[in-house]
Amino acid sequence: MILIAYMTHHVVYVVGHMNPDTDSVCSAIVFAHLLNEWRKKDGLIKLDKEAVPAIQGEPNPETKFVLEKFGFDVPEILDDAEGKTLALVDFSDKSQAPKNIDKAEIVAIVDHHKIGDITTPNPILFVNLPVGCTGTVLKLLFDWTGVEITKELAGLMLASILSDTVIFKSATTTELDKKVAEELAKIAGIEDITKFGIDVKSKLSDVSGLSAREIITRDFKDFDMGGKKVGIGQIELIDLNLIKDRIDEIYEEMKKMKEEGGYAGIFLMLTDIMKEGTELLVITDYPQVVEIAFGKKLEGKSVWLEGVMSRKKQVVPPLQKAFEQV
Amino acid sequence: MILIAYMTHHVVYVVGHMNPDTDSVCSAIVFAHLLNEWRKKDGLIKLDKEAVPAIQGEPNPETKFVLEKFGFDVPEILDDAEGKTLALVDFSDKSQAPKNIDKAEIVAIVDHHKIGDITTPNPILFVNLPVGCTGTVLKLLFDWTGVEITKELAGLMLASILSDTVIFKSATTTELDKKVAEELAKIAGIEDITKFGIDVKSKLSDVSGLSAREIITRDFKDFDMGGKKVGIGQIELIDLNLIKDRIDEIYEEMKKMKEEGGYAGIFLMLTDIMKEGTELLVITDYPQVVEIAFGKKLEGKSVWLEGVMSRKKQVVPPLQKAFEQV
Ligand SMILES: [Mn+2]
Ligand SMILES: [Mn+2]
Repeated sequence: MILIAYMTHHVVYVVGHMNPDTDSVCSAIVFAHLLNEWRKKDGLIKLDKEAVPAIQGEPNPETKFVLEKFGFDVPEILDDAEGKTLALVDFSDKSQAPKNIDKAEIVAIVDHHKIGDITTPNPILFVNLPVGCTGTVLKLLFDWTGVEITKELAGLMLASILSDTVIFKSATTTELDKKVAEELAKIAGIEDITKFGIDVKSKLSDVSGLSAREIITRDFKDFDMGGKKVGIGQIELIDLNLIKDRIDEIYEEMKKMKEEGGYAGIFLMLTDIMKEGTELLVITDYPQVVEIAFGKKLEGKSVWLEGVMSRKKQVVPPLQKAFEQV
Repeated sequence: MILIAYMTHHVVYVVGHMNPDTDSVCSAIVFAHLLNEWRKKDGLIKLDKEAVPAIQGEPNPETKFVLEKFGFDVPEILDDAEGKTLALVDFSDKSQAPKNIDKAEIVAIVDHHKIGDITTPNPILFVNLPVGCTGTVLKLLFDWTGVEITKELAGLMLASILSDTVIFKSATTTELDKKVAEELAKIAGIEDITKFGIDVKSKLSDVSGLSAREIITRDFKDFDMGGKKVGIGQIELIDLNLIKDRIDEIYEEMKKMKEEGGYAGIFLMLTDIMKEGTELLVITDYPQVVEIAFGKKLEGKSVWLEGVMSRKKQVVPPLQKAFEQV
């Protein structure tokens, strides 16, 4: 592919959330393709501008692996939305948007999360489904609108689904995700889905080259919970032992981040994707939220949550309720 | 149909916006049907509860005509959302929801307006398309998920489209609305779409039984324009002659409303949907806004605005600017 310089106002930037994960980057590439194909067809929702994928920051090693495997460049970085036209993938919350999102025009959203606080002055396309991955929603949009899925795009969507659903182990996984993944694997020519999933997921398990801050913030999101600022990070590992030695160092860094950022609490999910559970590291002014939310008390710095793998489904909702009570 | 008493917590109420129009009522019935059909099929988004259509208040005469024509009862009234499970059609703004919407669980939204301020704690189905009618979006959801459209449901969706788009004359009409309406007309067995549209729209044209106040307020909205309180009503008529005799009476009532409500101006759009223009009745402390906004001076009590049919798109924006200048 060739990098092309676009005039800011002549394109729609398709962009995923902050701290980009594989789904948010691959979905930006896939949805940009889909929007451009729709422009060539009759009887569909059409944008009047060419769509270009973008990314908020650097892709993580897993995402880099996926992009390289299927022959895509890293999208161009977008960190200021002022005056730009955007389509959003994989989020609908202002807190996860590029800065000056209120000075941007938003023309489309495709997502699979809770409905966020982004509003628009005009009607737009907004398709959010309660499934495991934005890639799943996009695959359905291809089917529904009759646009052909190339082998490479199928690879991106499949990798996104395996990444987001932790190879179908996350509580967010639906039958639709599995069905769609099988169809995508056929198009992408991938025979062993689980093996490919482990290939993808193992790329983030090597944290040896990362600082404590990098480990915490690699997949970190801010939330407003009952008027309190709460940060929740997650790191998924093939084996928790890969990170055991660095827990103290990470905890000290979480303390620092809490002070610097004025957080009521910082939570880091150390998720063991093979054991299917999460060691939740906690530093908060309201330690009682842990028992309210999860029915288990903190043991020192952390608590083991059996079966918990999804921040979105299993950690954010109970913590949200708990912080609203304290 | 037989009315069944449902236990509040065991159903999903599918409900449209306040001051229900034909689209918001018919779409509630149609989407409830669709959600229930999805429950029987594999590989789709499924709710764990039976869906039941509901309405916020009384249906207008147009909506009553449509429901009767296709053999549907008026849905049950829902005015308090507390503790209930809801699916929303035709709006996504809290200001148009039943009271206590913050104490309800929202599980799905289908709409065609700007994205409103409703947020959710969990992922849900939210499908909003920039088309002329929620009925159009629902028809696409039937096609996309392979659910059969009965003759009666096709009639409801077609009537909604003709109502919302003013028989394809409104500025909000898209090619998709027209294409979908033609497909629905075939299923519903309606040969002359325009004739059916006039049948539907004429039901709101009979104002003989209404008081002047009822005519003004049937579709009336308050706006803050440059710090001034401005009220704009609209009534769509097949023929302006239907209301000619009552102009003086209506104008006196507008004067009263202006004094009572402390308005800087009250505007009533008498829209002739066949001639495609609006006779704008005006009582205001700033008569010069009319020329600033529309390039034409008031002639006595009113001014004819050729081609103007949409309050949202063609009247509010220029009046807003004009009031900011005076
Ligand atoms: Mn995702
Ligand atoms: Mn509508």
